[in-house]
Order: sequence, then structure tokens, then C-alpha cells
Amino acid sequence: MKKISILGSTGSIGVNALSVIKNFPEDFRVIHLTGNLNSEKMIEQGKEFLPNTITMIDEQAAGKVKSGLKELDIEVFTGREKLLEVANDKNIDLVLNSLVGAFGMEPTLKAIENGVDVALSNKESLVVAGDLIYNAMDNSGANLFPVDSEHSALWQCVHGELNEDIEKIILTGSGGPFRTREVNTFSSITKKEALKHPNWVMGQKITIDSATMMNKGLEVIEAFWLFKMNTSKIEIVVHPQSIIHSMVQFKDGSIKAQLGVPDMKIPIQYALTYPRHLPSNWERLDFTNIIDLTFEAPNIERFPCIALAYKALNKKGSAAAVLNFANDYSVFRFLEEDIKFTDIPKIIDLAIDNHQWIECPNLDDLKELDLWTKDFVKNFD
Amino acid sequence: MKKISILGSTGSIGVNALSVIKNFPEDFRVIHLTGNLNSEKMIEQGKEFLPNTITMIDEQAAGKVKSGLKELDIEVFTGREKLLEVANDKNIDLVLNSLVGAFGMEPTLKAIENGVDVALSNKESLVVAGDLIYNAMDNSGANLFPVDSEHSALWQCVHGELNEDIEKIILTGSGGPFRTREVNTFSSITKKEALKHPNWVMGQKITIDSATMMNKGLEVIEAFWLFKMNTSKIEIVVHPQSIIHSMVQFKDGSIKAQLGVPDMKIPIQYALTYPRHLPSNWERLDFTNIIDLTFEAPNIERFPCIALAYKALNKKGSAAAVLNFANDYSVFRFLEEDIKFTDIPKIIDLAIDNHQWIECPNLDDLKELDLWTKDFVKNFD
Repeated sequence: MKKISILGSTGSIGVNALSVIKNFPEDFRVIHLTGNLNSEKMIEQGKEFLPNTITMIDEQAAGKVKSGLKELDIEVFTGREKLLEVANDKNIDLVLNSLVGAFGMEPTLKAIENGVDVALSNKESLVVAGDLIYNAMDNSGANLFPVDSEHSALWQCVHGELNEDIEKIILTGSGGPFRTREVNTFSSITKKEALKHPNWVMGQKITIDSATMMNKGLEVIEAFWLFKMNTSKIEIVVHPQSIIHSMVQFKDGSIKAQLGVPDMKIPIQYALTYPRHLPSNWERLDFTNIIDLTFEAPNIERFPCIALAYKALNKKGSAAAVLNFANDYSVFRFLEEDIKFTDIPKIIDLAIDNHQWIECPNLDDLKELDLWTKDFVKNFD
Repeated sequence: MKKISILGSTGSIGVNALSVIKNFPEDFRVIHLTGNLNSEKMIEQGKEFLPNTITMIDEQAAGKVKSGLKELDIEVFTGREKLLEVANDKNIDLVLNSLVGAFGMEPTLKAIENGVDVALSNKESLVVAGDLIYNAMDNSGANLFPVDSEHSALWQCVHGELNEDIEKIILTGSGGPFRTREVNTFSSITKKEALKHPNWVMGQKITIDSATMMNKGLEVIEAFWLFKMNTSKIEIVVHPQSIIHSMVQFKDGSIKAQLGVPDMKIPIQYALTYPRHLPSNWERLDFTNIIDLTFEAPNIERFPCIALAYKALNKKGSAAAVLNFANDYSVFRFLEEDIKFTDIPKIIDLAIDNHQWIECPNLDDLKELDLWTKDFVKNFD
């Protein structure tokens, strides 16, 4: 039985993960759950999965959870420091990190340093601190299991294969809601328009990243770390139907793809039960209905965030971390309806160019860069 | 260095296999080549690859090859018995069997009995004698490596996976030239029409099998043996573009597919260099051009041969062998313009129903069934 912690259990990944765990009551024991504001959902989860502890970032929410679960033997905590303590528990077998934003990086690093495997949905962890995390993995022997549908697909495709036989990685992306929109209308894109994703139901931050295609940019950086591929060997292909979740091309020209209905429970389950494909009754792809899959090159003029991700990777060092921080804060400003959609890539580009570049940033450097970037983005006008 | 024999080297699979071998001069040494009538092509191959022996089924062709290569130290033989002797050579590491029709079964069995691995393009081997061949494999420890693009795809998809995690096999097929033709016009299909395949360039027999979709039926039977799957777990999906070469669905709903341009050199190379994907410069799939992949259920009314294959598998024993023999001989009669396109499934169905069923046919039984079926098909009017 695997002892598991879920960081961000009330978000869409966390909820799906608990659906998976419910299917395998013999295989998992939930030890820690963490959330932010959603006390109602957390009370439900507490009653059903009876974890040892629950941590809510928000103090008021923690209070509600505490009183909602007072009959049960569950310790309820609050605050970011407590969340880090939870991530630091050495008696866990697997941490599922589905926190949103750069905030999720430190818990990943803590778990890895302790030799605890991490099922990673928080893509910012590797974008911000890929180097630190891989150094920690080398020391502790802990593993990273990708949860993202694209990286899970790549991971499944390379399973049993030699790394030296891989020619390139082909990350697919839906192209988001603005794939075919006229580029000269992008500056007038509203928050409401940007929050409508054609295929996946996700949190707000990730939905905006999908609209700017920064999501794919971050995934390129994540793939760079997970699969140790040269930047030039990672390609993005737009595939509006989100049925093929990504592909690997081998040196003989053979391509393997992983596909299925767009349901996060499949990659989440694979990360939790790797290397098995254990029986489950998630929806199947139905080939008796007519299926039409299309592919096209991404349009960099529409989606400059893609080019920014490659730029950051090629600059190495602190550039990808700054790209990530700048994206977090400018998406926040866009969601506050404070800047235009097209300001997002502009701000990120400026932040990359203007920050004090560091070759091998440590945790303190990253925290300082985060503060610097927050300030930089706030002052953009 | 692998010592290799190629049975049927002047056919399209054989020619492609020699293109692959040419790319890896350090890895392969060609020991035996065999052909049927094409002396010109065989003389070319003899000069380039300098095998120890060449066997031509046709005596006149053998004479031409002998005189064409008289300066070289290559023994030239003729006749079917000699071909079996070649297949019987124990000092070979790998036999590529790309013979056409049921004629190719005995050489597969001979090689396997001798403990020699077989890269199998001759799908009739398993259709006719799956049971005999797998018994021989159990005794000798020899392996079968599929060469067919579909089975190579399946083999690549299950690589590194557990058999018990497989939910089903999805064989893709182009649907052939008559996928959308009105079913009431099928009886007037001409030889010329049936020989035009939209995606693959292949021999005449296989092209007709593709037009009737018996090709897929034979592949279902082959997959049954290669992957030890229940008949109900093998599905056919029509995919006109022949880009996805087949798929495996796992028990968690995840699907793996193998894809690429329709070029037989890729699966041939994989069978020869398994488990590696060694570097080669065969054409790559280009996702910067717009690609459109479609899928639909096969139409059994148009293609009754598919249902016949499942019928034969469910009847077990000698039924699949008779299906195969009846198909060989009725396709021959169709190519002679002696019967109608729609007579092919009719004859096969009658042959399955009318033959003397045997539970575990041995080689002699199969030879007798072959003769009985030949006669049965000849007398159909």
C-alpha cells in the first residue's frame, strides 16, 4: 500500500486523483491533503478519505474545515509553512503535487530531497528549478512521474525504449480558443473569451496559459528536463481535437503516440500506478463513431509565448524561471482585467531581457528573482 | 554480425529489406536469397550482396541467374525442395520470410524448428499453421518478429508492457480502393480496378486481399497468434490515410499507436534490428503540412471477408487454414478474370462450411486440406 500526499487536492487534478484512488482502495492510503480556499470540497474529501492531516493555505478556510471535521481524528493546519512541512514528511511514498504556479516548486524540491517520489502536475517546478530538482534527484534517488497529459504520453511512448534511439519529441497542443482568430484582434481579447477552452476543463491560470499557448512553452521546458532532450529536438504540433496527447519520433522514423479521450484521470492513474495500466472504467475512445484528427504547425505570430519559451531555454540559467514568474504575474494582471492579452508576452520578453541573469540559481536566488519579477510586472504600464 | 536469409528477395518486401541491410553493412551478412521468376532483379541482388546461394523456384529463371552470375562464387539452385533446404539451414541467425501465399508456411516452420528466428512477412504462415508454429517455438526457443506494418505497430506499442494490461488490439486498415463504393456494384469490380491501391505498392495477391479486406481478416488471425489475444479483443478500424499503422488499448483506457509514412522499410528495419530504432534516413512524417487522419468502423456488408476471418477463428482447428487456401485460389481465379469479385467471399465461406474439420491439423493434414480446397475452388461455378 502506497502512502500518498495530495498537494492541491480540491483543484481539478486533485479531485480526479482522488477518483482514481477511490478505485484502488487496497493500493493507496491518503496521509495528507492540502487546499487553498475551498473548505466545502475539503470537508467532503476529509470525510471520505480520512487523511492524517489537512492543510488549508487560507486561515478562514482552515477554520471552517476544522469545525466541519471536528468529529474526526484529522489534524487541520493553515499557512504556507505548514504546507512545506507536509511536503517534507519522509514517511510518504508518493507526493502528488498539483499546486498551481511557481508556489508549487519548493514542495517538489523538498519531497525529492527527502527521497520521496513526486507525481508532478505542477509544471512550474521544473520550469523554475529544473537544475536544482535534477541535482536533488541524483543525490536522493527519488523519481519524478509526469501527470500532465502531454508528458504522461511521452513517458508512455518511451517506456521500454533507449534514450539514444529517440530522434525528437512532438508535443501536441489544442491551439486553445484562439487558434484561428485573426492576429490583429488579439489585443482586444477579453478575460471571458480567454477562459473558454475547447477541450479541457481546468483552473483559470492554466486556461489562460492555454489561450496564450504559454502552456505549450512551459511544457517544452518541462520536456527538456524530463526527457533530457536538446531544445532543437522538442517540437510543438497543433492538434485541435486533443486526442493524441503527444508523440515520440525514433531514429528509424517510427513514431509512437499515446491517445485517448481528454480525461486527466488516465495520466493521473498512470503516474500513481506506473508502470501498470490497471483496469479502470474511464471513458474509452470510440472508433465506431467517425473520428477526425488534424495537425498543423503552430503560428508563432499569434502565439509569441512559444518562441519565448525556446528563447528562455536557449539562454539557460535563470531565464526560464523569470519567464515563469513573469507569466504568473502577468496572467494574474490579465485576470484582474488590468492589462491586455497581448501584454502578457511583451512583459515576459522584457522581464527575460532585463533581469540580472544567473547561471545556476539556488533557492534564495529564485526567491529574489521572483520578487524582482513581481515588481517588474506590477510596474508595467 | 547477423547471418540472414531472405526468402522472396525480388518481391517488394525483399527489395526493401535489402535497402535496409545496405544501410547497416556492419550488422548483416546475406547468406541465402530466393526468388521466383525475376532473374534480372536477382542478378542485380547477387552482384551487390554476394550471398552464398541463390534459389529460383522457376527453372528457366535459375538458368538465367546462373549464367548472369557465373563469374561469382554463388551457388544457384532451383525448385521448391531447394528453397525448403535453404530455410532449413541451421547456421543462419535470422530468416526473413517474404514469400507470398500459403507456400510460405513450411519454410517458417522449418526455420523455427531449427531454432532460427523468423522475421515474418508471410502472414499465411500463422493463419494456416499458427498452432504448429507456436508449438515449434515452445520447443526450440526461436522467435517470430512481425514485418507487416500493422503487426510491427502492435509489437512496438506493447514493447515494455505487460500482456495482462492489454485491453484490446486495434488493427487499422486503409479500407482499400472500394471503401466508399456502392455495395450493389461490387459484383462488377474488374481486376484492373481491384489492383489500384490508394496507399501501398504491393504484389498482386496482397493488393486484391486489400481490396476485399481479407488482408485485415488474415491480420486478425495473425494478431490472435502473435499477441495471444482473444478474438473478441481484436478490432478493425478503417483509417484511409494509412498513417497510424495500428494501436493497442490498455486496461486504463490509454491507447498507444505507432505511426509514420506508409513505407515498409520502417517495420522491416525494426524486425531486423529489434529492439533498437537505429538511425536511418527514411522519409519522415511532416507535421508542418496539414495532416488529417480519419477513422470509421469497417462495413461488413461491403467486406464480408472480415466476418469470415472471425468465423474461421471461432471455428478453430483447420477452419483458418481452409479460409486461407480458399482465398489464395479464388484470388488466383479472380486475377485470371475467371470469377467475380463477390465470388471470392462466397467460395471461402462454402469451403469453410464444407471441408472435413480437423481439430489439430498436422503438416500432412494441411497439405491434404490444401489439395481439397484447390479442387473445391476450381470446381466452383
